Amino acid sequence: MATIFSKIIAGEIPCHKVYEDERVLAFLDISPLSPGHTLVIPKEPAPYLEELSEDSAAALGRALPKIARAVIAATGCKAYNVLQNNRAEAHQAVFHVHFHIIPKPNEDEGLEIGWSPGRLDDAAAKGLLAKIRAAL
Amino acid sequence: MATIFSKIIAGEIPCHKVYEDERVLAFLDISPLSPGHTLVIPKEPAPYLEELSEDSAAALGRALPKIARAVIAATGCKAYNVLQNNRAEAHQAVFHVHFHIIPKPNEDEGLEIGWSPGRLDDAAAKGLLAKIRAAL
Repeated sequence: MATIFSKIIAGEIPCHKVYEDERVLAFLDISPLSPGHTLVIPKEPAPYLEELSEDSAAALGRALPKIARAVIAATGCKAYNVLQNNRAEAHQAVFHVHFHIIPKPNEDEGLEIGWSPGRLDDAAAKGLLAKIRAAL
Repeated sequence: MATIFSKIIAGEIPCHKVYEDERVLAFLDISPLSPGHTLVIPKEPAPYLEELSEDSAAALGRALPKIARAVIAATGCKAYNVLQNNRAEAHQAVFHVHFHIIPKPNEDEGLEIGWSPGRLDDAAAKGLLAKIRAAL
């Protein structure tokens, strides 16, 4: 299923390319939350992170610190969020895995995060752990 | 600099362990935003992603899809966000790199995201690209 990102990878749509290696492409987001907002994507066309191959996922992981260092150097902004959304309910808009690197230069620009934590009780933890471990 | 996460890695503080390999540890967040909220951390004690070694970053990347699949299987929730924050201004609270896997079962639970995009103009893009590429 072609997305705008697979067309960018294929060279059919231009991008402001930041970085490329055998498995990974990074380019500036054209609708940035802050200056330097960069997308880091696998060339493999998986829609969701849990469907991505280990090799692509490792290559993405390896590229992130390197690209983050360069974004920091370029923007002068050391605070940033890395975000990867899966499915529309979790704010995914393009169904090709992508990690956002989003500088946070001030309160008004960058990612806005709402955080309403609960508390993990031991019974819930045990039930969850048994299920997660069984699935690993 | 010891953090609560380096103490968990050292076994000095207990955790609800989900996954472990040579370089990576994953455990349930004790202040979850939703059931199944899991932290995936490198054993290497880097405070920020841009300071993490490539080997640890690749190992984290490799582990994420695997753990995400298990969290989905355990919770039944396919929508989720992966978030990694750097520096207090960007919502980092523990200064040891950690990726959150946060299921998004409904509007009220999980990560709340505010998204106020701008528009990337060509002049800004060219200036940024030159600086980022020079730093890579």
